[in-house]
Amino acid sequence: MRYELFYWPSIQGRGEFVRLALEQAGADYVDVARESGRGMGVAALMELTDGPSLARPPLAPPFLRAGKLVIAQTAHVLQYLGPRLGLVPKAEGTRLWAHQLQLTVEDFVVDIHDTHHPVGAGLYYRDQKPEARRRARYFREQRAPELLGYFEAVLARNPAGDSYMIGRRLSYVDLSMFQLIDGLRYAFPKLMEGLEGDIPRLVALHERVAGRPAVAAYLASERRLPFNEDGIFRHYPELDG
Amino acid sequence: MRYELFYWPSIQGRGEFVRLALEQAGADYVDVARESGRGMGVAALMELTDGPSLARPPLAPPFLRAGKLVIAQTAHVLQYLGPRLGLVPKAEGTRLWAHQLQLTVEDFVVDIHDTHHPVGAGLYYRDQKPEARRRARYFREQRAPELLGYFEAVLARNPAGDSYMIGRRLSYVDLSMFQLIDGLRYAFPKLMEGLEGDIPRLVALHERVAGRPAVAAYLASERRLPFNEDGIFRHYPELDG
Repeated sequence: MRYELFYWPSIQGRGEFVRLALEQAGADYVDVARESGRGMGVAALMELTDGPSLARPPLAPPFLRAGKLVIAQTAHVLQYLGPRLGLVPKAEGTRLWAHQLQLTVEDFVVDIHDTHHPVGAGLYYRDQKPEARRRARYFREQRAPELLGYFEAVLARNPAGDSYMIGRRLSYVDLSMFQLIDGLRYAFPKLMEGLEGDIPRLVALHERVAGRPAVAAYLASERRLPFNEDGIFRHYPELDG
Repeated sequence: MRYELFYWPSIQGRGEFVRLALEQAGADYVDVARESGRGMGVAALMELTDGPSLARPPLAPPFLRAGKLVIAQTAHVLQYLGPRLGLVPKAEGTRLWAHQLQLTVEDFVVDIHDTHHPVGAGLYYRDQKPEARRRARYFREQRAPELLGYFEAVLARNPAGDSYMIGRRLSYVDLSMFQLIDGLRYAFPKLMEGLEGDIPRLVALHERVAGRPAVAAYLASERRLPFNEDGIFRHYPELDG
């Protein structure tokens, strides 16, 4: 199965959570909007969200085409790919738990995004700076410690040990935790400097994932886009306290 | 199977999307935090989110206990319950589509919630009124028309007709669409008066769902909590333009 990933070509964004899973698994995939030629590019993406061709259109990227299926919503794409890429255990209860954690990652992503877009995703950051300052402060003081503390507790309570979020092997949830820590370090370096002492297991998990050969090769490749101020994780020093 | 729903006892909130599914199906369930006695009440809910008993703790309600499983995240609970309550078709692709739509409902719920809480969910509305006015305006002008338009288009494109969101039978997604329309009418009556002409299929779906005998009986019962200014859908006239 050759998977087609549809996501904006110039940012990591939500697509990165899917890219990391595909890369870790060595999956056969094409990042459609980053390619050119027939059926490729941003136009191919827009055709599926805005065109009349699909009876079941996605609202927004990222989405995945797998044969005849088109699947949108980041956590949902990962729930679909997990078993197919060997990135989640087999037991039903464990798969449910993985998806629940991924949906909580998604909640965190919304909070991170809204630190710079608290009024509207379609407006520029420069047009919502006062609101962003307040939301970012709330994020730094309340939401980030709460959510990082939650994920740290999940690691600490894993009956199979604290090497991975679920059981004793890498899952797509670990890849997403890597991305969260990596992105937060980029966007909020001061905040993370203050918080990392409280989340030693997540910090170790970040390093463990980064050291996986397939992940390390991906991060060193041109396929890994750099963080920038168009994505979810943006470094605006005035929002870092 | 007796299901135990855990949610705040005084609001519809996110729990209502689950309550509607359980009620439509005539499921055997208990709304734990609304009952008193041993193992009941808000204390029982808090014990699972904040206590040390679970290796896989939910971050927040709503969550469902089904035997040994504890499942959190609204859309995830509905994905679990759907097949068990006969509220989603059997085909895999159709179930994926139902979950994708429900996750988009959840995106909408976040936007609705954040009209009155754009800075932080843990702060009072009165402490974020200026930000709320701006976010609500963006919601009224951009986000609500976009999302309602999307769901209207989904109904229009349903190859089996526009009576239901998926296929030709009621699913949990229809129950959630009912709740969205119902809540938006409560919170934003002026906005909806202006928008409903553009979403005739959703308006008809709302009426169709409200007329289902089990739903009608539930809505007329004391189990259906009234909308109020502690939930997701809050009527603050200053946010309705």
